[in-house]
This record gives sequence, C-alpha cells and structure tokens, in this order.
Amino acid sequence: MDHGSKGREENDIEIEGGGMHYDNSHNEKRRCERFGSELSDDHGSGMLRVPLLTRNRANTTSQIAIVGANICPIESLDYEIVENELFKQDWRTRTKVEICQYVVLKWTLALSIGVLTGIVAFFNNFVVENIAGYKLLLINILMFENRYILGFFANSIINMVLSVSAATLCAFVAPAAAGSGIPEVKAYLNGVDAHSILAPSTLFVKILGSIFAVAAGLVVGKEGPMVHTGACIANLLGQGGSRKYRLTWRWLRFFKNDRDRRDLITCGAAAGVAGAFRAPVGGVLFALEEAASWWRSALLWRTFFTTAVVAVVLRAFIEYCRSGKCGLFGKGGLIMFDVNSSQNSYSTPDLLAVIFLGIIGGLLGSLYNFLVDKVLRTYSIINEKGPILKIMLVATISLLTSCCAYGLPWLAPCIPCPPNLEREQCPTIGRSGNYKNFQCPPGHYNDLASLFLNTNDDAIRNLFSSGNAKEFHLSTLLVFFVAIYLLGIVTYGIAVPSGLFIPVILAGASYGRLVGTLLGPLSDLDTGLFAILGAASFLGGTMRMTVSLCVILLELTNDLLMLPLVMLVLLISKTVADSFNKGVYDQIVKLKGLPYLEAHAEPYMRNLVASDVVSGPLIMFSGVEKVGNIMHALMLTRHNGFPVIDEPPFSHAPELCGLVLRSHLLVLLKGKKFTKQKIMTGPEIMRRFRAHHFAKAGLGKGLKLEDLDISGEEMEMYVDLHPITNTSPYTVVETMSLAKAAVLFRELGLRHLCVVPKTPGRPPIVGILTRHDFMPEHVLGLYPQINPHK
Amino acid sequence: MDHGSKGREENDIEIEGGGMHYDNSHNEKRRCERFGSELSDDHGSGMLRVPLLTRNRANTTSQIAIVGANICPIESLDYEIVENELFKQDWRTRTKVEICQYVVLKWTLALSIGVLTGIVAFFNNFVVENIAGYKLLLINILMFENRYILGFFANSIINMVLSVSAATLCAFVAPAAAGSGIPEVKAYLNGVDAHSILAPSTLFVKILGSIFAVAAGLVVGKEGPMVHTGACIANLLGQGGSRKYRLTWRWLRFFKNDRDRRDLITCGAAAGVAGAFRAPVGGVLFALEEAASWWRSALLWRTFFTTAVVAVVLRAFIEYCRSGKCGLFGKGGLIMFDVNSSQNSYSTPDLLAVIFLGIIGGLLGSLYNFLVDKVLRTYSIINEKGPILKIMLVATISLLTSCCAYGLPWLAPCIPCPPNLEREQCPTIGRSGNYKNFQCPPGHYNDLASLFLNTNDDAIRNLFSSGNAKEFHLSTLLVFFVAIYLLGIVTYGIAVPSGLFIPVILAGASYGRLVGTLLGPLSDLDTGLFAILGAASFLGGTMRMTVSLCVILLELTNDLLMLPLVMLVLLISKTVADSFNKGVYDQIVKLKGLPYLEAHAEPYMRNLVASDVVSGPLIMFSGVEKVGNIMHALMLTRHNGFPVIDEPPFSHAPELCGLVLRSHLLVLLKGKKFTKQKIMTGPEIMRRFRAHHFAKAGLGKGLKLEDLDISGEEMEMYVDLHPITNTSPYTVVETMSLAKAAVLFRELGLRHLCVVPKTPGRPPIVGILTRHDFMPEHVLGLYPQINPHK
Repeated sequence: MDHGSKGREENDIEIEGGGMHYDNSHNEKRRCERFGSELSDDHGSGMLRVPLLTRNRANTTSQIAIVGANICPIESLDYEIVENELFKQDWRTRTKVEICQYVVLKWTLALSIGVLTGIVAFFNNFVVENIAGYKLLLINILMFENRYILGFFANSIINMVLSVSAATLCAFVAPAAAGSGIPEVKAYLNGVDAHSILAPSTLFVKILGSIFAVAAGLVVGKEGPMVHTGACIANLLGQGGSRKYRLTWRWLRFFKNDRDRRDLITCGAAAGVAGAFRAPVGGVLFALEEAASWWRSALLWRTFFTTAVVAVVLRAFIEYCRSGKCGLFGKGGLIMFDVNSSQNSYSTPDLLAVIFLGIIGGLLGSLYNFLVDKVLRTYSIINEKGPILKIMLVATISLLTSCCAYGLPWLAPCIPCPPNLEREQCPTIGRSGNYKNFQCPPGHYNDLASLFLNTNDDAIRNLFSSGNAKEFHLSTLLVFFVAIYLLGIVTYGIAVPSGLFIPVILAGASYGRLVGTLLGPLSDLDTGLFAILGAASFLGGTMRMTVSLCVILLELTNDLLMLPLVMLVLLISKTVADSFNKGVYDQIVKLKGLPYLEAHAEPYMRNLVASDVVSGPLIMFSGVEKVGNIMHALMLTRHNGFPVIDEPPFSHAPELCGLVLRSHLLVLLKGKKFTKQKIMTGPEIMRRFRAHHFAKAGLGKGLKLEDLDISGEEMEMYVDLHPITNTSPYTVVETMSLAKAAVLFRELGLRHLCVVPKTPGRPPIVGILTRHDFMPEHVLGLYPQINPHK
Repeated sequence: MDHGSKGREENDIEIEGGGMHYDNSHNEKRRCERFGSELSDDHGSGMLRVPLLTRNRANTTSQIAIVGANICPIESLDYEIVENELFKQDWRTRTKVEICQYVVLKWTLALSIGVLTGIVAFFNNFVVENIAGYKLLLINILMFENRYILGFFANSIINMVLSVSAATLCAFVAPAAAGSGIPEVKAYLNGVDAHSILAPSTLFVKILGSIFAVAAGLVVGKEGPMVHTGACIANLLGQGGSRKYRLTWRWLRFFKNDRDRRDLITCGAAAGVAGAFRAPVGGVLFALEEAASWWRSALLWRTFFTTAVVAVVLRAFIEYCRSGKCGLFGKGGLIMFDVNSSQNSYSTPDLLAVIFLGIIGGLLGSLYNFLVDKVLRTYSIINEKGPILKIMLVATISLLTSCCAYGLPWLAPCIPCPPNLEREQCPTIGRSGNYKNFQCPPGHYNDLASLFLNTNDDAIRNLFSSGNAKEFHLSTLLVFFVAIYLLGIVTYGIAVPSGLFIPVILAGASYGRLVGTLLGPLSDLDTGLFAILGAASFLGGTMRMTVSLCVILLELTNDLLMLPLVMLVLLISKTVADSFNKGVYDQIVKLKGLPYLEAHAEPYMRNLVASDVVSGPLIMFSGVEKVGNIMHALMLTRHNGFPVIDEPPFSHAPELCGLVLRSHLLVLLKGKKFTKQKIMTGPEIMRRFRAHHFAKAGLGKGLKLEDLDISGEEMEMYVDLHPITNTSPYTVVETMSLAKAAVLFRELGLRHLCVVPKTPGRPPIVGILTRHDFMPEHVLGLYPQINPHK
C-alpha cells in the first residue's frame, strides 16, 4: 500500500501554511512581485497574495495515516506558547490562587490517571483470568472424561466467539483500537494527532477488545493495549470536561493546550506499562525511552508519582484477592515472575552462552520485524476492504491458533511427574494448572500442553521456572517456539487490540530455555535464567529498547543479581538487530504513514536550505484585515497558521507582525467585533475576550467554519487581528540550512516555523515550514537527484 | 562573598558579542548610525562599528566562578554545529570508512571510560579499606591494652596526617578538586567550561584526595568525587590525545568538538555513580535526572553500555578479592547493603510512619541545605585567603571529627552481646568489626563506637542491618544523628574532595532507625527497613532527585519489595523540602557563580523582548576583511563570536552572512592566506585548510593571539572570511519575547544567538545574545523595577 500516492490524491485535507494558490483576482487587490517597493501605495489592500517566484509547488505528502486499522486525516499538535496580547494579559493578571489551582490540578490529574489506570489494569487481569480460567477448566474436565473431540470443539468455539466479539467491536465501534496502540501513542507524543487515537470509544473498545482477545487464547499481549488505555484515560481527564454533557469545570481551562495534554499523556503511557507489568520504574523509563519525544526533568517526577500510584492501587487489589474473593484470579493474575536464582557468579562459558543468546536474539528479532512488516502490509489491504473481511481474518487466525494449541500437544510424549513437588499438583486435574494431564495416563503430564493450553502469563511463568531443568523436552520447546514465533507474526495486525510484548517474551523464553537445555552440560546457569535471558534478547532484537526493558525485566523477575547478564544480552541483541532494520514500533509508525519527526536531521538536509523546501504560495493577512478576506481564506484552505503583516499606516514599512491561528480566527470572528473603518480596536477586543476563550478544545470539538454566521455587510467590515497574533513566532532566515531548521523545529515542538527573507526589499516572510515539509518524502520528491543513503 | 561585584571589576575577561566599544577613529573608517543608507558608499570600509543607539550598555555579570575551591574564569561551550564551507566540504567528502571509524571510536571510548572508571572505583575502595582498616585495627589493639590516651592520639594524628595530605594536594596542586564535583560536572554539561574543571591534575588530586579524606574518617563520601572522576576520565579520553606528548591520533579528530565531548562526559558521570554504588541503572538515571542538561535517546544506550561495563569490571575485581588477596578489603569494600527484608505487606500504621519519616526528611533536608549554604559562604571567605588557611581549616575539622569519634562513645553505656550471633564476633577483637568493645568489659560492646569508630560504609551497613531491633540504644542513635548531621554540614566545603551522599545517608539512616525504634510497638516494619527509608527521606530532602535515588537505593539494598515505600517517602520528602528551598546541588551551583541555564524561562522574561537585554555595541566584520581590523578586534576584546556582514560588491545590500568564531579566525590568520585586494579567495583557502584544522582543541590548548606573527604589511592586507563563516547561525527577531529566545537558546545548546532587526533599512544584525545575557542578575540589573517573585 502506498500512502504517498494516496496522499497525493487527497492532499487538500490539510495543508498548513502552503499548498493552495489563492487567486481570486476579481476583487480590488493585485499581485505584487516586489513587496517593499510596490506595496507602499497599496496599504489598504488587506489580504496579500504573493506567489513567490520559484515556489509555486505544493506539499504533496500524505495528510492521512492509519490509526489502529482505520485510515483517517491527521493534524499536527502545537507545543509552542502562543504569545499574543490576550495571553500576556492573562499571564499578568493570573493570581497566586490560580497558579496554585493549576499546580494542585496537575497533581490531582496525575493521581487520577494513576488510580484509574491501576483499576483498569486490575480489571483486565481479573476478567481475563476468570474467562480463560473457566474455559481451560471446562476443557480439562472434558479431556479428563476422554471426550477429546468435544474438547476441541469447545476450545475452538469459545475462542472463536471471544475473538470475533473483539473483532466486531474493533471493526464497527472503534477501528482505532486495533493493534498495539504504542505506535499511535508514540506518534501523538511526537506531535501527530488524529481524532480517534485517544477518543473515548477507542478507550472502551481497547479495554473490552483486549480482554476478549487475550482470553481467546490469541498470541497477543495486554501490555501494548494497556499503554494505549493509559494514554486514553489521561487524554479524557485532560479534555477539560465535556461541553456536551455540561461537565466543564473552570479549573480545567488551564489544561486546554497541547503542552499540558502532552505531559498528561506521557504520564498515562508510563502508567499503562506500570500497570501491565507492575513495574513502576520500568514504566517511567519506557515513557522516557520509547514513547516520549520531549522530556523535562519535572515530568520525570510527575510520571514517577503516577506509576507509584498505579503500583499501590494494584498492590491493594492483590491483597484483597489473596483471600480468594476474585474467582479464579488467585495468585496468577498480574505477571510477577518470582525467579530468585541463587546463582550469583558466572564463568566464561556462561558469558559465551549469553553472548550467543544475544546474537540469536538479534537475528531472530530483526527477522521478526521484517516478517511483521510484510504481514502488516498484506493485512492492511484486507482490512481496507471493510469490516466483514476484518472479522473473517480474525476468525481465521483464531481457528489457526486453536488448532495449534489443541493439536500440537498430541505430538508430545508423556513425561512422568517429577517427584517431590511441593506447591504444585501433578498432573493438575480440575483446574488450570501447570502440569497438564492432556491425553497422558495418570502420573504423567504433557509438557507441550502445559505451555499451549494455558494463559500466556502462565506459559511464561512455566518457562521461567527454575530448579527443574528437565521439565520440558527439547522437542517440546522447539515446537512451541516455532509455533509461537509464527503465530505472533500472523496475529499482529488483525483487527483486535494486540500487544507485542507477550508474544515476544513467549518466543524468546522458549528459545532461551531451549538453548539453556542444550548448553546444560557446559554452563552452570539455570535453565529458567536462560529463559529470561532469551526473552531479553528477543525483546532487545525486536523493540530495541535497552534501559527500560532491563528495568522491566528486573521488576518482573525480582532478581537484581542477573542485571549484568540482562544488560549484556540486550546490548548484543540490539546491536546485531540494528544492523538489519529498525525497531518494530518505528517500522509500524512508518508503515502507518504517521509523519514522525526524528530527533536528528537527515544528513542530506545539510545540503539544502530552508527556502528550498518551502511550499507556496502563501496566504497572509494584514494587521487589520477585511472579514471577507479572512472568511475566504479559511474557506478555501485548511491552513492552520497565517502570517500577519503590519503595513503602513500601522508601521513604517511592511513588517512581519506574527502568526495567527485558524482556531483563534474562528473564535474572533464568532465574537463579531468588527469595524467599518480600518482601525485598531485592540482594547475593545481585549475587553470582549479572555484568554481561555481561545484555549484549544479537544480535536474535533473546536469551533468550525460552519458555526460562523457572517452577513454580507459584515464581510466588508474590518477586524483587528493584533490581539490574537502571536508576536513571537520562531523564525529562520531563508538561507538557514534545512538540517538546523529541522532540529529547531523538532526540539521546540513547533507546528509552524516562519521563514524570513535574508535580503531587504522583499516581502517580510518567505513561507511557513510545517511538519510535512521536513518529511523525507516531500524533500526527496522535490529533489529526486539526492541520494538519501549517501 | 559577592561574585556580582567581583565580576564587575573583572568583566573584561570574557564578554562575548558585546561589551567593548571599539573606537579607534585614527584610521579611515567612520561611524555610521544608519547602516543601509549611508554605508553603500563605504563598502571598502572593512570593520563596521555601529554603536546602536540605546545599547551602549555592557553585560556586567560575573565571568568568573568558583570551581572546587578556586576562583577562575569561565567560558561557554558551543553545542551548535558550525556549518561553514569547510564543514560542508568535509561532510560531503567524508567516506563510509571514516563514518565507521567515528562509530567504532565512539563505542571504544565508552568502553574505555567504563573500564577505567571501574578500575578507579575499585582502587579507591581497595586503598580506603586498607588504610582505614589498619588504622582501626591499631586503635582497637591499643584500646584492648587499655592505652586509651595513646589510642586517642594515634587516631587523631593519623586522621590529621591523612586529611592534611588531602588538603595540601587540593590547595597546591588542584584547588578545583575540592568539594563534591557534582555541581561542576552539572555546570559543564549545561555548557559552562573552566580549564580546571576536568583537567588531568584535577583527576589526580580527586582520586588521591578522596582516598585520604575518606580514610581520615572525615564525614565525607566518595560518591560525588567518583562522579567527578568519571567525568575527568571521559574528558581526558575525548581530548584527542596530547599534542605536547605527541599522542595525537588521527581518528580522535572527530571528537574535537563540544557535542561529542559532552556525550562522553555524560557517560563518565553515569559511570562514576555506577562505580560508586555498583548501581548501573541508577548511574544512567542519575546522569539523566541530575547531571545532564540535554539528552538524546541514543545517549541513553551508550551511557547504559558504559555503566554495564563498570559493573562487570567491579564484579571481576570483587571475585578476585573474595579469595583474600586484597588485604583488609574483604567483603566490605564496595557498598552493597544486602537487606533482604522478608516483609512484604504493610498496614496503615506502617504507612503513617513512612509518611511521618518523609515529612521529617523534608524538613531536615531543607534545613541541611540552608545550613550548608551558610557554612559554604563562610568557608569561601576563609578559602580565598590562601592555601595555608585552607589547610588549617581542614586540620581543625579533622581534629573535631576525631574528638567526636573517639570522645562521644564514652558517653554510651555498655550493652551485653546478643546471643546466637552467626557470622559476627562480639565484641570484635583485633579487627575492624561491627561490635566494638571500646571501653566495655568482655562480652559487652559499645554501640556508639560501632558507628563512630568504623568506616562510613560499615556504619551504614550496621544501621541498615535487620533482625536485631535492639542493637542500638535510642540515646546512641540520637547522639550519632546529631553529631553526623552537624559534622556533615561543617565538613562540606573544606578543601578536600568530599561527597555528600554518604553523610546524608548516614544521618538519614540514623534518624530512620531512631524513628523505627520509637515506633517499634506500633509498626511491623523492621528497624533496618526504617533506616533505609530514613536515608531515602533525607536524600530526597537534600538532593531532590527521585527516580535515580529510588533505583540507586534499590540496587544498593537489593530489595525490590520495598520499592513502593521508598517511592512514597521520596515523593513526600521532596515535596516538603521543595516548599522551602532548592536542591543542594542547585544551591551550590548558584553559590559558586556558575551561569547555569535553567530549562524553563523565568516568568518575567515574558514581558521583555530579545533586544531589551542585548548589550552592545557590536563588532562586526566584513565578508572580506582587513587583517589589521581583525587583529585589533581580537586584541581589544575577548568576544568569541563576530557577525560577518556581506556588503556591496559581494551582495546587493548589506546582509548578515553569518557568524565567525574567534578560534577559527586565529587558525585562519595563522595560515596567512591574505590578498592585497579586497577579493574573495574561498577556493584557495579551501585548498589550504581542512575542517579538522578548525576542530576545537581542549580548553587552554587552542591557538592564542600571541602565537600569531603578523607583519605591518600583512596588517593592511585582506582575508576572505567566507569559508569559515557559519552561514546558518540561529537568529531571533528583535521583538521575540525573551522567554522564547531563552528556551531556544537553552534547548539547542547555543553559545551565540543573533538578534536580527524587524524593520528594513537597519543594520542586518542588532546584537548577539550569550549565556550571560539570560542570567537573572543581568536582566534584573537592567530592569530593577521588575519583581522576579511576582
């Protein structure tokens, strides 16, 4: 699927600060090629249309992307402080009480995110454990009664019903909830917004869909969806209530801007990881390393507070459930693999084995990423064909998974139960235990069934279990690894909420244990430890995170002594895998067409200057502009920022006054403070409006052009734009190297970057750069002779 | 001590881009008030001197700061990429092999930093444990023989000799090595350089001085010095060899810039923490949370690699020492408090106790910071009076510490030895054990002596020890806490390398254990756990770090289950303390006069614009400039950046060509590619020079003005500045709000920020903003009517 070409057909959806040639020459204004000289006699002209000579090109990069399993238009977020008159007045008059309100609110919201995410995390686990528990119980009983065929059908049908429910929700209610959600959250935190990424319906489907998909035994995790859920919760809380349901609260007005929302959503993402893995420090590091594009020291603390709250909430629930009030939840529930290896020194062969694991992990991980990419491309063609095909695809994968889970264990030989089992029953009868009897005679167990006919969490716990090196046969581990590796690849991308962590940990742990069993005679390390290292190596090979994975594994397994080994294996697997392709999330972000801004500029950008990629012509407003001109510009384009030019008599010569935003213009026009003459009416506007009138509403909730009702007479009147003009937009000179402009744009989280001319006697602005102008597709489209791989 | 007034006397040391009015009107050039109009007939004029009307003020903020215990001039670092012709050519011609070299070198350096820091960390501990061990052994033996007076003298004299040695090294060899070093490293990573911060002599004294000071029983830690040591090692490795000793290596030329050095030093700081605490993840987080001002995801990985190497090196050494080959090093050595509390659930009274501890920690911590600040101010007056007074101050503190350590235990009653001791001897005779006999009869021990007459590490281990709640009397803990709290305050700031972590942990652990003993009947928590929580609360109250402290404590104590409690106590103590004053390191940075750029702009900066703080007049060069003019400017000012203006005939109108750096000018002039006519000679210069000729040498190592030998005839010749002019300097319009300019300056790590005029018909540059122009002293000095606390 080629989003580039798709974008070219639909590029009128949103082109900021460029792209539309606005040329209604029927009115009294005229073109001016040379601004400074010719325009002095034309100062009543209002809108200035300056088609810059060489820049009649439009930015044709895609303005749409796939969110979940849905194609939808995207917008950029704006992390710049809009310093206009109203903002400054608001800031000056802000009282100590209001500042205090803001701080209290910030921490209250962090607390609420923590509490809610903690509750959702517990709820997810609680429901999954109960549904999957009763399902496995039923099958165990059927098998115990030798009704194998019935068992197969029971298993397949229950799984099918659960996964089709998840798929139906995803297909009809919120297609954005499909998939892991981490790429979308990552893109949001990079400044890409789409209405559905963090909508309430997405939250609802993400929670229910994830429960159904995991309970259905699909090879998916609940960790990615938890991150997305945390971000959705944070977004919902930061929306400033709902005007529709009259839930607006005065305090919340301070949060109506992208910066504060970004901080909340970073907290939410961290809370999601903390909730999924019960790893509060790991959650903070995950947000820092993988999710967030901007980071401040203050945020570190707030995020940490949120994840600590999640940990406390989860702990309280688990304490409550310990008394057996939560059905089959029992002790399983939340992942917490208590692997206390007594091992604490290691020899050279051990290290060699670990290095070997790291290399395998890197190779398998990059292959995994490659295959996931291929499968995703295929699936997105199927998914585009409509909801019915989405659901059928899910049903097929569910059937395949059920067949594997129920069919493959028949290949495994029966193993006699190990003697001296303390806490476990063997074989487990009548409940979803670890030593599955399956088709075996009493006193024996089927080790492959112990892995396959179990929840994913229990399978991981079995693989990590230490002490009993011979619990699993080599062949069992091999079959399980191959099956999970392939099922993981074909499952990601179907229209259900599906995390990647659990499939990757499962596959990694199984080949880790396989290697451990093979190298048993050479190495003193426990096979359980090998399983953990295998999981680490595969995680490093696919996701390419290091510090956060290391800490998450540490918190999962509660074993600090193996830290150096985990570090080593992660470093090696990441290095190996990085030489083949990018991390799986980066790959998915790119595949989905989300315009992600990298932290570093592309090397070829050093050879270009800012004006080389500016797309024009540009639409500018005068400091006091005719209403009709503004309406016309808003109607004809989807630009979100317009430069405002001061001309005589308001200034000596034409000069750049600043930048005005579409949303602010709409609010100003709605207020109808118009004048017949072209005069400045700043003070009146300042009396009529307050800064919070211009606060940014949630995406899709703001004022729309259709909401305005401007009469023909009003169209001929003037409105003073000065009070809402951001007089301090960031600017670069047109000869600034594009690489440095890109760094400026990215580091400061801008939406619009004004390009000003270098030489005098030219119009005061050359163009506006937006996110899309820095995208490689755009730049390389303009200069096809550039070799990006040089 | 008022650095502001000091600075005013010496402000000619370095004033970048402003400050000096250059007015040698004997030559043929003349002033021009209006640039555009009058200058067109003056394009042969060479240097342009444009005293801007309202900006005849100079920046009078201090250009010096205290580094260690020494006052020295400071410079700014420049993290901007200087995109001039030479750089671009170098970049274009850089081969794949060279890029590969760069990457390999980067990782090799990270590896070397890890290995060297690990070795130094082990060496430090090894020597300290042996010196202090034999000292304590001697005193133990003397006391066993009832020769108490001799014991006192032996203790005091040995301590005195050791601490005076440390002080002598600090006073005469490297005054910059005094103190913790963390504030200096923090300032360096924020972009403030002083020759001595990371010099080899500093490294040498830091290592030896820290060993002597810790072995002398002073209440100082070796953690801060380790951070400084790690940073010094990184700096030394990144210097690109030494020209003096002919150790230049071609590969290293890629590292001759501030950006790459900054990354290395961040790795070094992280390695230092990792080495001091054996906490690799904690080290990374420390670098991230406290040390670094800029952070990239790629750096996270490299830092992590370095700290992992440190951990592996330390582990290898400890394995080696386990066999008893390291003298008294034994198992003590590196801190690693193995506190495995079996506790894993807690009740409401426990939580209340923890909250109470957090509040106390916050109060005591902020009081500690307040007192440290007062003491430091007093000490810096003494330290300024010369090395002899510095040494005498150290001797006094050493005597005071010895008296406390030897005298106070006499107040403590003797306690009968606990029965059933497994691993410990009680009382310990003939070695530096935990249960000190002191003056007690056999079978008894003196609990205060167990804390005082021990190394700090062992005292902490004793306080953290769990299981025996009655090991220490209440009165003992109280006396110890008060003594250590006060000694810690008076010891920091004397002229020896002195870390703050250990004094803070000691004091915190003692009041934690005190509270634990008091609340024993109410709470189920172990007193050892209370000691850990007390240490956490006091660390949070003084240093105000959260995530990194939490992880360091986790790695120190190897107990994941107490994580939520540590988090809680840290959050509370930080919140409480933050309402009183700033963190101790921030306070010291400010006290030392280091111009630290905060991440956020001060609120009052919103009311100012960039041109409000520009100090002038400005010295500019022409694109092709007369050598004499350049020499004159370099001689008369210490500016480090000069704007280059292109005028007719090289351009249609005067326009800003870019910025040229002093160091680059010196290299260019040294090359003597001059011409008689005012013509562009770019290609010739490009043939003569390569980019690496302009690479930034270590501070103090670059070419100096005195190294140039320009004849009178050459003074009248011209040189083309275009090839070395950075044509993409970051610019702001003069009306840009100062707050936003500050954010731009800080986020991009700039040294010079050009302010360009808004209206046409003015000179193409208004001024240059540097770090000092954003300092509150400067801004508030210009506008005294601003109330910064509004």
